[in-house]
Amino acid sequence: MRLSAADLQAGYALACQTVIDSDLEIFIPPQEEITRHLTTEKTAAKVVVPFDYSWREHSTVTKHYLEIEPPNLADNTDDLARLERELIKCCDIRGLYAPLPILQTLAQTLRHADWRVTVVLDHANGRPRIIDIVAGDQTETLYGAAIDIGTTTITVYLVDLYTGEVVETAADYNGQIKRGEDVISRIVFASKGGGLVELQSLVSNTINKLVERATIRRKCKPRDIYKMVIVGNSTMIHILLGLPPEPIRLTPYITTVNHPPTVLATELNLNIHPQAPVDCLPGVASYMGADITAGVLSSGTHHSDKVTLFLDIGTNGEMVLGTSEWLVSCACSAGPAFEGAGVFFGMRATTGAIEEVWINHKTFEPTNRVIGGGKARGLCGSGLISLIAEMFITGVTDKAGNINLSLQTPRVRTGEHGPEYVICWATETDIGKDIVITKPDIDNLLRAKAAIYAGYVVLAHSVGMTMNDVEQMLIGGSFGQYLNVEKAVEIGLLPDLPWDRFHFLGNTAARGAYMALLRRDAREEIAEIAKKMTYLELASDNSFHEQFMAALFLPHTDMTQFPSVEKVLDGKEK
Amino acid sequence: MRLSAADLQAGYALACQTVIDSDLEIFIPPQEEITRHLTTEKTAAKVVVPFDYSWREHSTVTKHYLEIEPPNLADNTDDLARLERELIKCCDIRGLYAPLPILQTLAQTLRHADWRVTVVLDHANGRPRIIDIVAGDQTETLYGAAIDIGTTTITVYLVDLYTGEVVETAADYNGQIKRGEDVISRIVFASKGGGLVELQSLVSNTINKLVERATIRRKCKPRDIYKMVIVGNSTMIHILLGLPPEPIRLTPYITTVNHPPTVLATELNLNIHPQAPVDCLPGVASYMGADITAGVLSSGTHHSDKVTLFLDIGTNGEMVLGTSEWLVSCACSAGPAFEGAGVFFGMRATTGAIEEVWINHKTFEPTNRVIGGGKARGLCGSGLISLIAEMFITGVTDKAGNINLSLQTPRVRTGEHGPEYVICWATETDIGKDIVITKPDIDNLLRAKAAIYAGYVVLAHSVGMTMNDVEQMLIGGSFGQYLNVEKAVEIGLLPDLPWDRFHFLGNTAARGAYMALLRRDAREEIAEIAKKMTYLELASDNSFHEQFMAALFLPHTDMTQFPSVEKVLDGKEK
Repeated sequence: MRLSAADLQAGYALACQTVIDSDLEIFIPPQEEITRHLTTEKTAAKVVVPFDYSWREHSTVTKHYLEIEPPNLADNTDDLARLERELIKCCDIRGLYAPLPILQTLAQTLRHADWRVTVVLDHANGRPRIIDIVAGDQTETLYGAAIDIGTTTITVYLVDLYTGEVVETAADYNGQIKRGEDVISRIVFASKGGGLVELQSLVSNTINKLVERATIRRKCKPRDIYKMVIVGNSTMIHILLGLPPEPIRLTPYITTVNHPPTVLATELNLNIHPQAPVDCLPGVASYMGADITAGVLSSGTHHSDKVTLFLDIGTNGEMVLGTSEWLVSCACSAGPAFEGAGVFFGMRATTGAIEEVWINHKTFEPTNRVIGGGKARGLCGSGLISLIAEMFITGVTDKAGNINLSLQTPRVRTGEHGPEYVICWATETDIGKDIVITKPDIDNLLRAKAAIYAGYVVLAHSVGMTMNDVEQMLIGGSFGQYLNVEKAVEIGLLPDLPWDRFHFLGNTAARGAYMALLRRDAREEIAEIAKKMTYLELASDNSFHEQFMAALFLPHTDMTQFPSVEKVLDGKEK
Repeated sequence: MRLSAADLQAGYALACQTVIDSDLEIFIPPQEEITRHLTTEKTAAKVVVPFDYSWREHSTVTKHYLEIEPPNLADNTDDLARLERELIKCCDIRGLYAPLPILQTLAQTLRHADWRVTVVLDHANGRPRIIDIVAGDQTETLYGAAIDIGTTTITVYLVDLYTGEVVETAADYNGQIKRGEDVISRIVFASKGGGLVELQSLVSNTINKLVERATIRRKCKPRDIYKMVIVGNSTMIHILLGLPPEPIRLTPYITTVNHPPTVLATELNLNIHPQAPVDCLPGVASYMGADITAGVLSSGTHHSDKVTLFLDIGTNGEMVLGTSEWLVSCACSAGPAFEGAGVFFGMRATTGAIEEVWINHKTFEPTNRVIGGGKARGLCGSGLISLIAEMFITGVTDKAGNINLSLQTPRVRTGEHGPEYVICWATETDIGKDIVITKPDIDNLLRAKAAIYAGYVVLAHSVGMTMNDVEQMLIGGSFGQYLNVEKAVEIGLLPDLPWDRFHFLGNTAARGAYMALLRRDAREEIAEIAKKMTYLELASDNSFHEQFMAALFLPHTDMTQFPSVEKVLDGKEK
C-alpha cells in the first residue's frame, strides 16, 4: 500500500486495487502528465552528415526525368518497355521491375503528362524497382526518413537525399504508452484480442504524425518521402510489422525474425509514398534489437582498436563490449526506475522534474535543478541518481541505502513507508505535498543499477576480462545524454574509470538509422554487426545472480572496484 | 432496322433505339439464352502431359516437410533462421525470402504445429520465396492451375504438379459477357466510372467459381493451389490486372505492358492460396496476346522446319506465319459474325444452334444438324459457314453473295430485309418463326472471312511468300475445332491447300498455359516466342485494304487461288 492516510483522505485510490461499480472521472496527478517538452526535439537538429556522401554514388533511391517518344503505328512498343528504353538511353538502367499498382496508373500518367515524367527508382535489391512515376520534371527534391521507435519516444529525421542532411527532426511520445509503459506490458497487451492491431496502429499513427509535422515545416508532402529506415528494440519492430511479440517475453525469448525483409510503406499503413521501401534494420535477439546494432554502427564500436563498452540505458540496459575484431553483448532488465516509474515521486524527464540534486554535507539541506525552471513535481531518472549519490556521499544513507534517522535535520523522518528523506517541502512544489524518497524507492534504484553493473562484469568475464580492461565507454540513448558521470559512478551505475574514457553520444539508434538510410555500405555494415555480435543470454548465465547481489550496495560490496569513490568517502571522513 | 412488321406487332423493340420512360420487364429471346453446354468442358479432359515431366526437376513450386529443433536458452536463433537452417540441412535451400504475411503467422504456426511443418516454396525467381507454412506433413498433394481467359469462355485446368497431369477441367462463359460481347465493348465499358473494377471482379469471380468447381470434384481446396498461369488476349489480361485497356482500342493501339510481372493471387482477388504466384504469360501487342504466344508454344510452330501458318479465329483472327527461324504475325478484326452475333438468326454454339447445313442442289431443300439434337433456335458460326458454302456451291447465291430469287423453290423469297433463304420453317423451330439468312447477314460473313483471308496474304507477302508456300496450317481455338475444312475453303475462309496440311489443335492457348505452368523452360520459351515474333500492324499496311476488297467474294475474286473450289463448281455445272 503506497498511499498515505492524507492521500486516502484526499480521495486518492490505487487504480489497480479499486473495483469500479459505476461511472467515474479519473484525474491524472500533475506529475504524471506528459507535457510537450521532449529533449530529442531540440537536440536532433544538431546531427551532421557523418561521412562523405554523394547521392549519385550512395543513394539507393534515385529520380530521373525522362522525355519519352510517344508511340505511333510504326512503333507500338508497350508503355513500360518504352519507358525502360528511355532509361537505358539516359542512364543505362535495365531490367526494370514495375509493381502492379504502378502499372495500373502507367498508361494514364504517361498520356496526361504528355510523355514527360519523373521516375523514382529503388535500387536496393538486384532489379531496379519503380516506386513512383509523376508528371513533368520533379527531380528538384528527394527525401528519405530515418526513424527511431523507442518504447517511450519516437524520433523522426527527415533527410534530404541529395545533400545527405537532416533537414527536419520531430519527436514525440510513442502513442503505445497508453497501453503500457514498458515492452513487457506492451507484449502482454498485444497478446490480447485485437491488441497487436491496436498497438501497430498506435505506432504507425505516431510516425505518421511526426512525418507530417516534419514535412509541413519543410514545405513538402509525406508522399515525397521515398525511403524509410527504422530502428527500435525487437519488440517495437515486431509490433510495427504486425508480428506477435509473445515469444519475446516467454523463455527461451525467441523473435520471429531478426533480419526483417524490406516491406512497402502501404503494408504498414505508413503515410509516406505507399510504394516506398521501409527497411527495418536487423537486430540480434529478443532483447538486443536494431536500436543497438545501429548504435554500435554510429558509435564506431565495431571499428575501434580500443576495448570499448557501448551502453544504452532505458528500461533495459543493453551493452556491447568489443573492438574491431569481436563483439559480445547482453541485456539486463533494469526496470523502469531510471524512467521515473516504480519510484513514488518518480516521473519522466519533462517539465517539473528535478534533474539534479546537491546536498550540503553539514546541514543536509538539498538544492535542486528543475526541468523548465518552475516548481518541482517529482524526480526524473538523472535526478534520482544524483539524489542517491549525494545522500550516500553525505552520509544520509549507508552503503545498503538505509536512511540515517539519527541525523540532526527535519529532512530525515519516518513516514508511512518507513524512513524517508524530504527533497522539497510541500510549499516549494507544484503538487502541494512534500516530495520525499523512501527506502523502497532506493531499493528499486539499487536493483536497477545492480542489474546494469552485473551485466558489465559478466560480459567482461565472458571474454576473460575485467572492467579495468575497458579502454573507452560510449553511452548512447537520450537518458545517457543527461547522466552525470561523477554521480553515476558514485552509486555504482557506471564503472569507476577515468572520466576521459566516457563519451556521451546522444541518440545513437536514430543516427545509425540515418547512416543506413544514406549509404548502402552502412546498411550492409549493420547486417555485418548483427551477424558478428555474440549475444549472452543472462537468464542462462550462472554468475549473473551472484554479480547482481554483490552490486546491490552503494557503490558495490567490493570497494576495490570503485577506488575514486573510496577516496571521496575517505576525504569526507577526514 | 432489323425487326419485321410481325416482330413489331409482337411487341419486339430494338433496345439500342428505345427510350425507357418507366419500369419495364425485358425478355431474352430463347436463341440468346446461354445454356450450360460448353464444348470445352468435355474436350479439355483429354489433355495429356505434353512432354517429359519430373516435378523435382521442373516444378518451380515445391513442398518440404521439416522437423525443426525447438529453441532453448542456449540456442536463441530466431524462428525464420531456424526454419531456414533445417531447409539447408534437408535440401540445401538458402537465401529464403519470407513475405510479411508469412512472418506474421510464423511464430504461432511453428509452436502450434510443435515445430513440424510443411513449407511451400516458389523458386521461379532468384530467391526461394515462402508461399505457405502449414502444420504437419502435408506433402501428399501439390496443385497448380492453368487458365485461359477467352473473351467468351474461361477454361481452368487443375494440375497435379507431382505427376504433371490435368486432373480436372472446368469451363464457363466469361462473366464479363453481360457488359459486352467483344473486346471493344469491354474496353468501352472499362473506361466508364467503376467499369474496370467491375469487369475485373467479373473475371476473377468466374475464375474463382471454376476453380471451386474443379477442386470440389478433386476433393481438395482452392487454397491448395499454389501456382497459377494465365493466358488471354491483351485486353483480357489488362482487365484482369486492373490496367486501363483504353489505349488498346485507340490508335496507335498500345498496351501498358506485354510482359506483366508475376503477381500474388491476393492482389487479383483470386481465391487460391493468397500468396500463390500468378503468372500472366507475355504477349506481343494489343491484338497479339498471350493466348497466341501460348498457342504458338503448344502448336510447336516455333520449332517447325516447315513453313507453318498458325491460326486462332474468334472475334478476332490472329495468325502467325513462321518456322523455327522466324515468326511474323498479324491480327484482323473479323467482327463477331463467327460467334453468331451480327447475323439476324446467329447465336453461340450452344444447344439449339444449327452447326451444319446441307442443301440439295436440285431441290434446294436444306438438311441441318442441331447442337443437342432438338429443334433449331438459330445458327452458330460453323453452321453459318456451312450454310453459305452450300448456298454458293448449289447456286442459291452468286460469287457476290446475292440470293438468286429466280430459283424454283419457296425457300428463296423477298422478306423485310430483301432477298432471303429459309433454312427452317417456323414449325420446325423452337422459336416459332422461320429461320432465314438475308443478304445483310451474308455480307457480314463475307467481311469477316475476307478480313481473315486478307491477313494471310499480307502476312505471307511481308516475307516474300504466297499462300502456296504454306506447308502446314495449324488451327487453334475452340471455334477451329468444329470447322469443316471443305466448307471453310469453299467460302474462302481457309486457303485452298491440300486437306492433309490442316491440323486442328483445340484450345492451344490453355495448353500453352499448362505447359508454362509445368516447366520453367517452357515458360522461358514463351518469352522467347514473344520476343522473336514480328507483329505487323495491318492498320498501317497499305496492301491490306486491297486484299480485303479482293476477298469479299465467294471464295475470292482471283479463282486461281482456289483451284479445288473451281473444280467443284465446274463439276456442278456439268
